Amino acid sequence: MRKEVLFSGFGGQGVILASVILGRAAAVYEGYYAVQTQSYGPESRGGASRAEVVISDEPVDYPKALSPDYAVFFSQEAYTKYVHEVREGAIVIVEKDLVPHRDPEVENRLRVYEYPLTELAEQTTGLSLTMNILTLGILVGLTRVVSRESIEKAVRDSVPGGTEEVNLKALKKGFELADSVADSAS
Amino acid sequence: MRKEVLFSGFGGQGVILASVILGRAAAVYEGYYAVQTQSYGPESRGGASRAEVVISDEPVDYPKALSPDYAVFFSQEAYTKYVHEVREGAIVIVEKDLVPHRDPEVENRLRVYEYPLTELAEQTTGLSLTMNILTLGILVGLTRVVSRESIEKAVRDSVPGGTEEVNLKALKKGFELADSVADSAS
Repeated sequence: MRKEVLFSGFGGQGVILASVILGRAAAVYEGYYAVQTQSYGPESRGGASRAEVVISDEPVDYPKALSPDYAVFFSQEAYTKYVHEVREGAIVIVEKDLVPHRDPEVENRLRVYEYPLTELAEQTTGLSLTMNILTLGILVGLTRVVSRESIEKAVRDSVPGGTEEVNLKALKKGFELADSVADSAS
Repeated sequence: MRKEVLFSGFGGQGVILASVILGRAAAVYEGYYAVQTQSYGPESRGGASRAEVVISDEPVDYPKALSPDYAVFFSQEAYTKYVHEVREGAIVIVEKDLVPHRDPEVENRLRVYEYPLTELAEQTTGLSLTMNILTLGILVGLTRVVSRESIEKAVRDSVPGGTEEVNLKALKKGFELADSVADSAS
């Protein structure tokens, strides 16, 4: 088992924290090996943010996500730049309000779930910056890459002290959104 | 130019944040390429925490720190496990109160700077959890791997809102500690 997960957006959207939490959930609470990576190049100046997690049942020799199994796009720039890397059949979550220009041809070969993530977070917790955690909830709910219990524990460990409850509320909203997809599919 | 930096300790010491900030300083404010990595294995359950940054003037093909040029040890477990990896002549910072058992033979080939980092942070800001940022100040002051201005900007960008000033105070204390080493050496 090797799963590659890509989170991307712009600075301040909590892309790195989301991926740190997922890596922690996989390793500390599920016993997998995990490597979590940020790569920065000259393009970082523009504010693009990209973080990756590789989860495996054996030590991870190659830590880069070359063809992500799961991907999250929080910004147009990130989508335009990285959506082509995602492997066929990948589960992809898109912040629809922030990614107006889409590529139907690429999306045809993906399983795309689109939400107004920032707005949903704002409505759920009053804090738009919980959108990264809400998205983690959707991702885990849809993919089961780690259990809901493990991601909850990792959120609790990792978010700033005092923000645990608001973030768990965002996470659970994410689970619900994933459940409603599963319900409507059945 | 390729520099490998290792931060290690236990959970809650801000090892990951320190390395994220250093990677950001190098890439966003100095125009280098940087890759920042956390690897988790079964040992993560014990609470060991390890983060790496590779900084280069060209794209980073291999993102793991195999023989760090600079290393930080915040715990005995981390020291015992990783100090042997550090390359000869490396600049190494040790939290002396938390690493009581040392290896003189290994340290003979390193440049070791030891401080009661947690206590110094507590004295400087009243918050022991600023020790990661204080240590970044020492590291940048001693190694000049990025400029002081760049690390200041990256700290400001990266720490939780409202904690900027207290963290910058810790950072500057780190610069001072590095300066006093340089002074006494001259």
